This record gives sequence, structure tokens and C-alpha cells, in this order.
Amino acid sequence: MPMKLTILGSSSALPTSERFPSAHVLNAHERIFLIDCGEGTQIQLRRNKIRFGKINHIFISHLHGDHVFGLYGLLSTFNLMGRINPLCLYAPQNYDSLLFSHLKDFDINLNFEIVFTPLKNNDPVIILDDKYLTVTSFPLQHRIPAFGFLFREKPHDRNIIKECISRYQIPVVRIPAIKKGEDFVTDDGVLIRNEDITLPGPKSLSYAYCSDTKYSNRLMSFVKDVDLLYHEATFDRSLSSLATATCHSTTKDAAKTAMDANAQTLIIGHFSSRYKDIKPLVEEAREIFPRTFPAIDGKTYEIGYIDDP
Amino acid sequence: MPMKLTILGSSSALPTSERFPSAHVLNAHERIFLIDCGEGTQIQLRRNKIRFGKINHIFISHLHGDHVFGLYGLLSTFNLMGRINPLCLYAPQNYDSLLFSHLKDFDINLNFEIVFTPLKNNDPVIILDDKYLTVTSFPLQHRIPAFGFLFREKPHDRNIIKECISRYQIPVVRIPAIKKGEDFVTDDGVLIRNEDITLPGPKSLSYAYCSDTKYSNRLMSFVKDVDLLYHEATFDRSLSSLATATCHSTTKDAAKTAMDANAQTLIIGHFSSRYKDIKPLVEEAREIFPRTFPAIDGKTYEIGYIDDP
Repeated sequence: MPMKLTILGSSSALPTSERFPSAHVLNAHERIFLIDCGEGTQIQLRRNKIRFGKINHIFISHLHGDHVFGLYGLLSTFNLMGRINPLCLYAPQNYDSLLFSHLKDFDINLNFEIVFTPLKNNDPVIILDDKYLTVTSFPLQHRIPAFGFLFREKPHDRNIIKECISRYQIPVVRIPAIKKGEDFVTDDGVLIRNEDITLPGPKSLSYAYCSDTKYSNRLMSFVKDVDLLYHEATFDRSLSSLATATCHSTTKDAAKTAMDANAQTLIIGHFSSRYKDIKPLVEEAREIFPRTFPAIDGKTYEIGYIDDP
Repeated sequence: MPMKLTILGSSSALPTSERFPSAHVLNAHERIFLIDCGEGTQIQLRRNKIRFGKINHIFISHLHGDHVFGLYGLLSTFNLMGRINPLCLYAPQNYDSLLFSHLKDFDINLNFEIVFTPLKNNDPVIILDDKYLTVTSFPLQHRIPAFGFLFREKPHDRNIIKECISRYQIPVVRIPAIKKGEDFVTDDGVLIRNEDITLPGPKSLSYAYCSDTKYSNRLMSFVKDVDLLYHEATFDRSLSSLATATCHSTTKDAAKTAMDANAQTLIIGHFSSRYKDIKPLVEEAREIFPRTFPAIDGKTYEIGYIDDP
């Protein structure tokens, strides 16, 4: 299970007794990425048995309280638990000064470093690039500056066909390069094409987080061909005027973006508290994009392997 | 049920999967008083079906995050729900400027007035006095300025003995004064003593909230004869050095305060996350003060009518 997503909160600004405010956890190669941090995130992390010490990267989409009011408590808890490892925080520009000022007001002196990456660009920017994946931020269209995040695994190595190793007497030292796609030349000078001695490796997976945003036809290009698209759907399609007025999306907007982006799967969430039952919202979205699933607090989705509706 | 207490959060600074940070709700004569507002309070309010619109008074004991980080989300929710009624907020001095500055940073413009009462005195002060009760703040002993709160019902009217009305021909107009304790003089000038024509009314109840604090022998005088004392017991008695160092209390400290204050009943809470099972903490306290109960998230206690241990 190389990439899996756990929903910690699926509500919009008003939480309900069943739904916490926004927070997602992406587990990629056993590293934990926290995306948004609504009130109660640390409680949801505990309930879902996610180890606090493994969280080294936190992404904040925008500075509305339902996406960030859990951060103070979480940082305070990190501190009380004796954290010393640096924490990478990606959030709209100037949030670092607000954060540090607020922690100071509350007698919280962090014993670990916060490495802050300000989000400010109007175009996609790679904000994290490591051995396994890249994370790209891209602009959303909300009432205040807001950013989405695309997590994309780097291409996996190709698998070498075992019998080819002896057939062509391939030295062990050449195998890593061949797995990366190089052709092989025998001692007799014969070129063996890479595709004749390897098979494709596992598909590289990707996850995109889009909340909060109104519909924008620019968005689909940022999340093109994504495996799992999370897109807010605060309102049902009958409330499109309210969605436009508040810079949020309807089920139809989310499904249209997923379809136009050629996403494999769509999860909708950030549901208005007016909806006691979210099945009708999912059904609306499935009329346009059949592979739609609802965000449910505490549920984990294996990216690339989500069951058919 | 004139006064009942609902525990929304019983954990100390590190919440657990079972215990939210500090927040209590006192229902007195169907008015709702919120005491402390740890992260997740609004979610717990919803789960316990407490109507947001009935909360007109919020008391914050001190400015540590586990007692106040739920306030931003709650105020934001009040606003989104269309609140216009003023909200009375009682908190350590200068918190109003911190609060307003923080709300502004998060794009929250309240549509209702906050009537702020700063807490700053080193002696008990009546901070609310209405038809039914008084609320007194008093100093606790913590690492930063901290305050406890005593909610005390005003004396109930005495009950007039029905047959005395006809026997002494008491005019209806005199009855309210007699219920307040006045004697009655007949048309013949005979003095009828109040205690001969009335019976005592129901007992006036009281509730005191003491968190966070180290043991202080001054405290018992502030909560003398209280019906229900809530006192923090962050640690078991073997950790008294840690309690002293962090300005918290042990089970023994809480029980001793209850005993010396002649409290009727004690609830302990603010438990350290190290305790998976809190029964041993309750048992420790009961060795000193038998009528001790644990704070349990979501449980309601009827003041004056809490079952025997």
C-alpha cells in the first residue's frame, strides 16, 4: 500500500456531531503528510492511531479557521511530547509571524524548529521534492488566497526480466541503470533495447487536494490525470448561486473538474452542515463522474485501489 | 433539576481518543454557562445537544491553550449561525485584545458584541449577579494568572404553610414578603413569627470550578460548603513532585481541598494522558474524601443529587 489517504474531517465551517472540520492525512511510503488542520485534528489523529512523531510536513491551504484552528493545539502537543525534530510547514505567506505571535501569547515556546515555506504564487510551484515524490502547490479560487496540493510519486523503476540477465550476461553493476530505462550493449556490441529486457514498474500514483475553491476551468490543468482527486463540494447543485457567492463548489463543479481533469477517482467533502445525509450529494456527482466517493471521517482510502461505487 | 453540570472535556493538555481538553457546561435554571473552551468544545456541544444560542456567558480560567483553543471556532460558528445577541466573556485581563486581533487575522468579523469582563484580582470578586445566582471569581495558583469560579444560587423563597393563610387571614399582597422571611402582624396587632407560618424553601445549590491549580490552603475558604466541587487532579499522589513543579494537583490535593472546604461532593478531572484507566485515581481520592466521582466526557451530573459512590 504505497499511498493511502485518511480523512480526519469532512465538514465545512460548521462541524457536526459526526464530521470534524477539514484535515487529511496522506501516508506515502510510510511518511505522514498532514493536509489542513481544523479544530480537533489532534484528537482525530489519536483516534486513527496515527503517530504524531511521524508527521514532519503540514500543509495549510488557506487561513480560514476551519482549516487551521487545530494547529495551535497540535504544535503544543508536539512540544509537550518532547519533539525536537524540525517541522516543515507550508502555508500562505505571512502566516509564520501570526503563528509565532499567537503561540507566544499562550505561553508556548517550541523546542523544535518550524521550517516555513510561504505559499504565494499564482502558478503551480514544486514545494517539496524528495526521493519518492514531489508536492506541487497551485492556486485555488476562494475569498482569500488559497492553495491546492498535488502529491505525485516519482516514476518507479522498471522491472528487469530475470531470464534476460543470464541470456545476455548482464553484469549486476548495470542493472540499476537498466531499471531506470537504459538500453544494454553486449560484449559483442549488440544493442538490446530496454523494452525487450524490462517490464514497466508499478504505476506512479498521485493525489490532489482542492479545498476551498469555486469552480475554475484553470484548475483541471493543475490536476490533470490525477489518480485521486479530493475536491470540495460544500453544496448540492441546486445551491449554485450560494456556492458562487461564497466561492465554494457544488457537487456538479467537483464532478466536472474530475471529469475534465481525467481523474481516476473523486472524493467529495467539506459538506455543509445542512446535509444530514450525504448520499444524495454523492449521487448527484456520480451522474457526471461515476467514480465518486464521499469523504467520511476516520475512513482510509488506498489510492489506485478504491472500490467501484 | 435546577442545576446540572455536563463535562465536555476531562483531559489535561494532551487530549486522548476518549477525553477532550477542558470544557464544562453548567445549566442553571435553563441558562447555559460555558466554563473553559478547549479545542473541540463546539463538537462536544453538538454531541451533547446543547443549543449554541442559549450560551450567553463564557468563563475562561486561564490562557493555556487546552482551556481556550476551542473559542475561536466556537465564536466563528456563532457568527455563521447568525448570532446577534451579545456574549459575555470573562477571562484574564488583556485577553480581549488578543482575541480580537486573532479573529481579524482569520477574516472573522463578529456580528455580535462581546461584553468583556477582565479577571485580575487576587481576592474573590462577584463577576455576575442576576435574579437566580451569583458567580464569583477567585485566584488559583498556577504558572500564569488563573481563576476559579463559584456559581451559587440565591436563597430560595420560604414556602408559606397553606392553612396559616386562612387561619391568620393573611392578605395575598403580603405573601411575597413573608416568603422572603418577614413576620406577619394581624389586624389585632398580634405578631406571628415567620418560622411559625412558613417552611424552608429548597436548598440553594452551588458549584465551584478549580482548574488549573496547585494545592493552596487559601483555596478552601473560597469554596467553603460548596455542593459540588470540581477540582483538577492531573496526577496520582505518587507524582506530587511533578504536580508541584508544574503547578498542578494530585488526587490527594483535590480530596484534601474538598474535605477542608466541607464540600458535599467532589468531581476530579484534567487527567494526565498517561492514565488509561482513571479508576485508581478516584480510589485514591476516596480514601480522603469518599464522595469523589470522575469527570467523564459527555456525562451530566445533577448538583445535589449525585449518586453515592
